[in-house]
Amino acid sequence: MRILFIGDVVGSPGRDMVETHLKRLKQHYKPTVTVINGENAAHGKGITEKIYKGFLDLGAQMVTLGNHAWDKREIFDFIEDAKWLVRPANLPPTTPGVGFRVMKVNQLNVAVINLLGRTFMNPADCPFRTVDRILEDIGAGADCIFVDFHAETTSEKQAMGWHLDGRVSAVIGTHTHVQTADERILPKGTAYLSDVGMTGPLDGILGMEKEAVLYRFLTNLPARFEVAEGRKQLNGVVIDIDGRTGKAEKIERLSFSDERPFMEI
Amino acid sequence: MRILFIGDVVGSPGRDMVETHLKRLKQHYKPTVTVINGENAAHGKGITEKIYKGFLDLGAQMVTLGNHAWDKREIFDFIEDAKWLVRPANLPPTTPGVGFRVMKVNQLNVAVINLLGRTFMNPADCPFRTVDRILEDIGAGADCIFVDFHAETTSEKQAMGWHLDGRVSAVIGTHTHVQTADERILPKGTAYLSDVGMTGPLDGILGMEKEAVLYRFLTNLPARFEVAEGRKQLNGVVIDIDGRTGKAEKIERLSFSDERPFMEI
Amino acid sequence: MRILFIGDVVGSPGRDMVETHLKRLKQHYKPTVTVINGENAAHGKGITEKIYKGFLDLGAQMVTLGNHAWDKREIFDFIEDAKWLVRPANLPPTTPGVGFRVMKVNQLNVAVINLLGRTFMNPADCPFRTVDRILEDIGAGADCIFVDFHAETTSEKQAMGWHLDGRVSAVIGTHTHVQTADERILPKGTAYLSDVGMTGPLDGILGMEKEAVLYRFLTNLPARFEVAEGRKQLNGVVIDIDGRTGKAEKIERLSFSDERPFMEI
Amino acid sequence: MRILFIGDVVGSPGRDMVETHLKRLKQHYKPTVTVINGENAAHGKGITEKIYKGFLDLGAQMVTLGNHAWDKREIFDFIEDAKWLVRPANLPPTTPGVGFRVMKVNQLNVAVINLLGRTFMNPADCPFRTVDRILEDIGAGADCIFVDFHAETTSEKQAMGWHLDGRVSAVIGTHTHVQTADERILPKGTAYLSDVGMTGPLDGILGMEKEAVLYRFLTNLPARFEVAEGRKQLNGVVIDIDGRTGKAEKIERLSFSDERPFMEI
Ligand SMILES: [Fe+2]
Ligand SMILES: [Fe+2]
Ligand SMILES: [Fe+2]
Ligand SMILES: [Fe+2]
Ligand SMILES: [Fe+2]
Ligand SMILES: [Fe+2]
Ligand SMILES: [Fe+2]
Ligand SMILES: [Fe+2]
Repeated sequence: MRILFIGDVVGSPGRDMVETHLKRLKQHYKPTVTVINGENAAHGKGITEKIYKGFLDLGAQMVTLGNHAWDKREIFDFIEDAKWLVRPANLPPTTPGVGFRVMKVNQLNVAVINLLGRTFMNPADCPFRTVDRILEDIGAGADCIFVDFHAETTSEKQAMGWHLDGRVSAVIGTHTHVQTADERILPKGTAYLSDVGMTGPLDGILGMEKEAVLYRFLTNLPARFEVAEGRKQLNGVVIDIDGRTGKAEKIERLSFSDERPFMEI
Repeated sequence: MRILFIGDVVGSPGRDMVETHLKRLKQHYKPTVTVINGENAAHGKGITEKIYKGFLDLGAQMVTLGNHAWDKREIFDFIEDAKWLVRPANLPPTTPGVGFRVMKVNQLNVAVINLLGRTFMNPADCPFRTVDRILEDIGAGADCIFVDFHAETTSEKQAMGWHLDGRVSAVIGTHTHVQTADERILPKGTAYLSDVGMTGPLDGILGMEKEAVLYRFLTNLPARFEVAEGRKQLNGVVIDIDGRTGKAEKIERLSFSDERPFMEI
Repeated sequence: MRILFIGDVVGSPGRDMVETHLKRLKQHYKPTVTVINGENAAHGKGITEKIYKGFLDLGAQMVTLGNHAWDKREIFDFIEDAKWLVRPANLPPTTPGVGFRVMKVNQLNVAVINLLGRTFMNPADCPFRTVDRILEDIGAGADCIFVDFHAETTSEKQAMGWHLDGRVSAVIGTHTHVQTADERILPKGTAYLSDVGMTGPLDGILGMEKEAVLYRFLTNLPARFEVAEGRKQLNGVVIDIDGRTGKAEKIERLSFSDERPFMEI
Repeated sequence: MRILFIGDVVGSPGRDMVETHLKRLKQHYKPTVTVINGENAAHGKGITEKIYKGFLDLGAQMVTLGNHAWDKREIFDFIEDAKWLVRPANLPPTTPGVGFRVMKVNQLNVAVINLLGRTFMNPADCPFRTVDRILEDIGAGADCIFVDFHAETTSEKQAMGWHLDGRVSAVIGTHTHVQTADERILPKGTAYLSDVGMTGPLDGILGMEKEAVLYRFLTNLPARFEVAEGRKQLNGVVIDIDGRTGKAEKIERLSFSDERPFMEI
């Protein structure tokens, strides 16, 4: 089986890229499941019901989130009914929504877990113990387990990779909005990538207008960040998993832009 | 002209990789200048005179540093005489050593600048204003300017790329120890890569033994970190620059390991 | 001579306290100069021209700021003309406004300096070197020098106290909104207090409604913070300085509230 | 009943102060229970068995810790047998030692809880939910509950005060090493003080030699911190509690030094 995961979709440029390319990507890669990180889908911060449903309509089966999950207050109105939306799991028990989902596809149970890192991020419950608890809950109930680990530092991400090696099918990082080049299959069979990167503007800073971000770095004064316009990119990853063992067999990064177009082979 | 830059060399496994492969890499790539980030070269933290001289003997022309520059106290004894050692520039005026060097190679003046980021890092002077001042100092005195921006976050790194686009030949990030896949030539001619990655252990966490790092994440208790043993990797980048304009023409990541060997084409 | 300094005035409850009590405090203490930290004066974040002028009308001679200086965008319209408004000095050279002022009062030149700490705060220029430069600028031009050091940690504040001991008349901390009990005259004659505390709501959290802040700590979800209502407090400090030497002779904390009223002795 | 709590004892100067003054303080205040925060008792970092036992011998009944709990590795050898040593409660379940203790004194059950803050500190479990769970565990089993909340920011400390108001007898902050002047009885009967301050050197920076700390702030270079010598201080707090209701009746700060001696009234 195969998972296609598309990294943090930023604003309307990001949604445009999904709309323009997802059908073709699915035809090309034929994924069993497509997962999109949508924490920045609404104007760069948060997600709305319309956008969430739009992702499903375009062909995604599951949408994950991150530290920006709650930035559009509308989320509180629809998250409980959003069956395929997964918010970070290591949040207080009172948090609306769920931190993992198991979906049945072609007779296979695919689990998707979303976790937040804690280094240089807001306080959260321990992601390592939280995922241990979730894996116990899932038990033998999943043929394949995909983890979107939304974290800042490479150390915490690599630590999660090793912590889960052999216990899940894939640990893929999100949040930095820059794709890393360290994809590999860890020794016990878990596909790992520190960060999948973002989908949206190519010439901004993490997807936001570079002028405003630079202004803030240079002046230390406040600046309002808007999603950048212009050229666009899409970043993702494709993971092949043995449906009988849940082990990853192959991991391949996917990255293209108006500068470096996607080539169908 | 061509620059070969090798990312954070970690401990003896990292030095071994340089010793084993640098000669062959230089034969293959024929760089005009080879630069090594050596901030982790001595047991994962800091650098000694012997290691610094060893890098020059093995074929590097310049060695850059980072936040770990001062971890081996021996640095204070030799840095003033270490002609090709460059420590972060945006430190107080009393700091020993220098923050940039210009070296004459084949009639070309090659400037190397080392800068520290500030987001999620220790206080430092503004890297943006510091580099502006250095560029004024250098003036027309360099045919090519290489910047090693040692920073944690992708936002600060991308901001530096845009800040220097068209004004330097290359902005290459270091510090996260994970190579990113976002190499590109920015619109005005600056080669950019968020992080070049590390050189040393393949199966650790940022080069350190994974067991100790995981123990700390899982228990919140202190643990002594040692450089990992076992399989190794080397990460670098090769940048082609037009010697007349100082603009980058090509940027190519370089990454190989005991798992994914380097193939001479 | 005597300085009365009133700590971070928060919103309308804080302004009410100043309006209600400043006249009486001035009658009681007869300060040569009254300084107010106004960084939170407008709805808890930033300051407006009307509020700034109101403070002068109520009897303050100088208003200092902090990390919230720029939160009301109106500041950019009036700061250049606000002769007695002092924003943090250790910001980029392009920053509007000034980082210190010298005011002539009763034949004495009183300098007021505002500085930002860097530990657990946003990047800024080095406050220690910045103040050294300001002291050189001021030279013999001030009979008394008052420093409002707006910083988070007690270590950076104490370090600033020792750094300036004997060189300024007083180093008074702001920003934590809680008055500390460590007032003293350092050995070389500088009055020191780690934090003067805030002026405004008594029963909030740093002046904001406690329910919202607690909600955020308990749920990790976003919450909108409003200035608290109800009982109020005023925190300040009174410093006696020898006008010929500029050395502090006495430092006395001032703190009262609807719970612990101010008693005129 | 009455609790005497002495703030972070730093190194041998701090232990000297306890040795010199505790007997006299106990004679003066006649506390039912004396608690000492000992996280910095051994050379400024951590605690040894000898020091822990020394505190008990000198008249303390309970010793609390903080983020430095584990700095002397010896702690792992004796913590399980140290019946009156309480380490932060909001750490992983695998952590040695316990996060609260209930002690029977004069027919009264006195509970002591130690908690870590998370803002600008290392990751930990949620202190708010942890203390809720502990209070459930304790149930009606304590006549008086004392909380040492070891945290950096005033906002998290005030939040804890309000969170526990009416549910515990006292919430006293530690960690900043500077005593605050905001002691009060919250509306529902909990005694509150943001920070009790430290016991040890008077003329250092948080108890460490000021020269080394200043050197690091000024140069950004590493420096070895030693406990300061010279004049000393002791900081504490005395809380009167109604043994039938567990509510606080009075809170009084205690602070004296070689500069401001303790006066027996
Ligand atoms: Fe994101
Ligand atoms: Fe994020
Ligand atoms: Fe490094
Ligand atoms: Fe580094
Ligand atoms: Fe403030
Ligand atoms: Fe502030
Ligand atoms: Fe402490
Ligand atoms: Fe502490």
